[in-house]
Amino acid sequence: MSGFKYLREAVYEANMEIARERLAKVTFGNVSGIDREAGVVAIKPSGVPYHQLTVADIVLVDLDNQVLEGGMRPSSDTKTHTLLYKHFPEIGGVCHTHSTYAVAWAQAQKAIPNLGTTHADHLVQAIPVTEVMTDAAIQGDYELETGYQIIHKMGEEGLSYQEIEMILVACHGPFSWGKDPAKAIYNAVVLEEIAKMAFLTLQINPESTTIKQALINKHYFRKHGKDAYYGQGC
Amino acid sequence: MSGFKYLREAVYEANMEIARERLAKVTFGNVSGIDREAGVVAIKPSGVPYHQLTVADIVLVDLDNQVLEGGMRPSSDTKTHTLLYKHFPEIGGVCHTHSTYAVAWAQAQKAIPNLGTTHADHLVQAIPVTEVMTDAAIQGDYELETGYQIIHKMGEEGLSYQEIEMILVACHGPFSWGKDPAKAIYNAVVLEEIAKMAFLTLQINPESTTIKQALINKHYFRKHGKDAYYGQGC
Amino acid sequence: MSGFKYLREAVYEANMEIARERLAKVTFGNVSGIDREAGVVAIKPSGVPYHQLTVADIVLVDLDNQVLEGGMRPSSDTKTHTLLYKHFPEIGGVCHTHSTYAVAWAQAQKAIPNLGTTHADHLVQAIPVTEVMTDAAIQGDYELETGYQIIHKMGEEGLSYQEIEMILVACHGPFSWGKDPAKAIYNAVVLEEIAKMAFLTLQINPESTTIKQALINKHYFRKHGKDAYYGQGC
Amino acid sequence: MSGFKYLREAVYEANMEIARERLAKVTFGNVSGIDREAGVVAIKPSGVPYHQLTVADIVLVDLDNQVLEGGMRPSSDTKTHTLLYKHFPEIGGVCHTHSTYAVAWAQAQKAIPNLGTTHADHLVQAIPVTEVMTDAAIQGDYELETGYQIIHKMGEEGLSYQEIEMILVACHGPFSWGKDPAKAIYNAVVLEEIAKMAFLTLQINPESTTIKQALINKHYFRKHGKDAYYGQGC
Repeated sequence: MSGFKYLREAVYEANMEIARERLAKVTFGNVSGIDREAGVVAIKPSGVPYHQLTVADIVLVDLDNQVLEGGMRPSSDTKTHTLLYKHFPEIGGVCHTHSTYAVAWAQAQKAIPNLGTTHADHLVQAIPVTEVMTDAAIQGDYELETGYQIIHKMGEEGLSYQEIEMILVACHGPFSWGKDPAKAIYNAVVLEEIAKMAFLTLQINPESTTIKQALINKHYFRKHGKDAYYGQGC
Repeated sequence: MSGFKYLREAVYEANMEIARERLAKVTFGNVSGIDREAGVVAIKPSGVPYHQLTVADIVLVDLDNQVLEGGMRPSSDTKTHTLLYKHFPEIGGVCHTHSTYAVAWAQAQKAIPNLGTTHADHLVQAIPVTEVMTDAAIQGDYELETGYQIIHKMGEEGLSYQEIEMILVACHGPFSWGKDPAKAIYNAVVLEEIAKMAFLTLQINPESTTIKQALINKHYFRKHGKDAYYGQGC
Repeated sequence: MSGFKYLREAVYEANMEIARERLAKVTFGNVSGIDREAGVVAIKPSGVPYHQLTVADIVLVDLDNQVLEGGMRPSSDTKTHTLLYKHFPEIGGVCHTHSTYAVAWAQAQKAIPNLGTTHADHLVQAIPVTEVMTDAAIQGDYELETGYQIIHKMGEEGLSYQEIEMILVACHGPFSWGKDPAKAIYNAVVLEEIAKMAFLTLQINPESTTIKQALINKHYFRKHGKDAYYGQGC
Repeated sequence: MSGFKYLREAVYEANMEIARERLAKVTFGNVSGIDREAGVVAIKPSGVPYHQLTVADIVLVDLDNQVLEGGMRPSSDTKTHTLLYKHFPEIGGVCHTHSTYAVAWAQAQKAIPNLGTTHADHLVQAIPVTEVMTDAAIQGDYELETGYQIIHKMGEEGLSYQEIEMILVACHGPFSWGKDPAKAIYNAVVLEEIAKMAFLTLQINPESTTIKQALINKHYFRKHGKDAYYGQGC
């Protein structure tokens, strides 16, 4: 299975970024990546502190959550990751953190309104928050149901997973995704910063509301889509 | 007494973690550990800055607070630590910090409600806050009485010290414990993060209340007890 | 074009200071510098993360935004920078960040009142916030219009760009400038700190208002103008 | 004058601690120390960034603010420092920072109430805030008058400079002092932490008030005075 070395390494680096960007304490949080052709998912092992994590610790599982390779148990959130890979066919990485401000919004059960261009650079809509799970779902296959909460919320509001790459799970915390593990953790970094900015904005001026649509569109489409002109165009 | 080298080292490392995690300024805070068989407690010396602390500075005392070995005076909070060891027979480490958000909740004399899964991953109940001490207790054997405040609060609310490994002493700050010094400081790190998340949650939505019992139980019992499946199961 | 090595280096250093002072996440923010004699502007390339940035990546453009040298596309905010150079003839550097507290004030659409001497050491007036741009301006030449928003706000309030070296663009974030790139980023650091102090001041005492004019003048003029006596007088 | 090498070094170290503890941005803040026998004060030069500061840059002045040795201009706040040395005969160091939370309380013109044991470990009373200076004083010998504001506030409230080693100058920021430069900067670190804790406490529970006198006295006197038992007793 040495062919997945690139995937393990990318997943390892993305997990270490959680610690470097201080998006979770001790062992919390996890990033995965997928090799779509092989149907192989690489993910952080459960409960391992970041300063002890090595590339060799990254666990390989299939989309049915069966361990393919690895001496450790995969993240307890593995079923959430694999469900997202099944329902969002174009994503290559998933990230879950317990970053402080994003968790606070998730605990407050409030979507984060689009209050400025830092937000609009990354998505048009508010950052959604899922419904609170039913007792039956919690007591059932909890981590799988967490994935369904995300998918249902996206569907219910008609949100595109290619456009909205981040969400808050109510009473829990943020999940994000993207074309690869690096983009998934990038989105987690951005989400935490947007969450902090929105918190402070509303403390300074509780009357602040969503910025005008023209400004949102301008910022979003200068970074996304066929007319984008931000970045190096690759 | 070279037989306690492992204990001194574990206590030294746990104390240094206070500084690394910025849970106390300058000399504040202290961690201890116990060798149950020998009845020997290792603890930080009083008033020594973290950047000067060495393994050799760690003081050994018995459960009656008598210094067994060490050229320095033990932490002024030693009597609180030893009382907890006497009343909580299965713990192996105790930690006291002045971490900012936990102190703020202690000074506000408010228990920290269970507002999300980061909290529920570690304990079911609110993080309790003790009563304010009577003048007589303060003017008596203060550090011993601090320990009694903790024990009484746990007893009064029927809380298990094996389940609730952290508490706020009113107007003062947090104490935590665990199976060894590393777990005691781990709990101090977690408590500070939960305290910050709860503060922010209530700033964003002052109506936030304790999350549903099913969600608390799910998160607590996936990490604790015989059916736990988080971590590497060791 | 090796003659502009000094300029590229100064601009590179000022950009790296954004990352070191944590004034923007990932790729956000940019600093430029100008060689007035040659009419050459050096600026950060678009969308490059700070940890990957090199001196060689700095792009040279003219005041009409044409790339003179550099293998990468210049910052998408280049037109804002060049417009400021055209209208503020004595400045040598421009800086744009997404620093958290300054963005929060910009998103809240509130000028930052002069609440203390840290503010007065750097400017007499409140830190201004522009008007929200019209839809027509947003949909037109957006980055150029961003520059005009700044210039119009300064003109409308009769503010001197030599005295007020920082401004908030509504719903977006801070811009600052100065005699060279180092001063532009210095002003960004100062603005973020003033923004945080003002936020906290108003949280502690919502009645806080602009400090007395005599105190403002004293602090401003001990650092600026012919009677200044702060610093080493060079 | 090589005899004052120890003093320059102590003052240099205490100034660098301002930067290490992030108690001021760029060039703000300054620490001095005095050789009482010689009447020589060593102080930071004005406007020098911490990362450029060297031991050789520390300026020596006498109590009349005349430069005795040093190629640079002393801190613009020198007159405040020397006045405090004249009026507080037992102090050996003075520190002024622009630390964020202490400045916020100073700008809010509120004394910091004694809300917990972290505060009580260091002083019994609230941390005082001076009156706002009159226009005449501001326009007169401003830095000298800043010192008088401090001295008058202490006198007016009957506060002992040996017990209260920190104060807020209204609309400006914190000053602290102590037996040597290291204690002066130690007090600045403590003040900033107390200021942050008090801010958060009042956000969590706006009804919080001064803790009971018995608890204040217990904590203060276990660290100060003839019956102190905190620390190593030297």
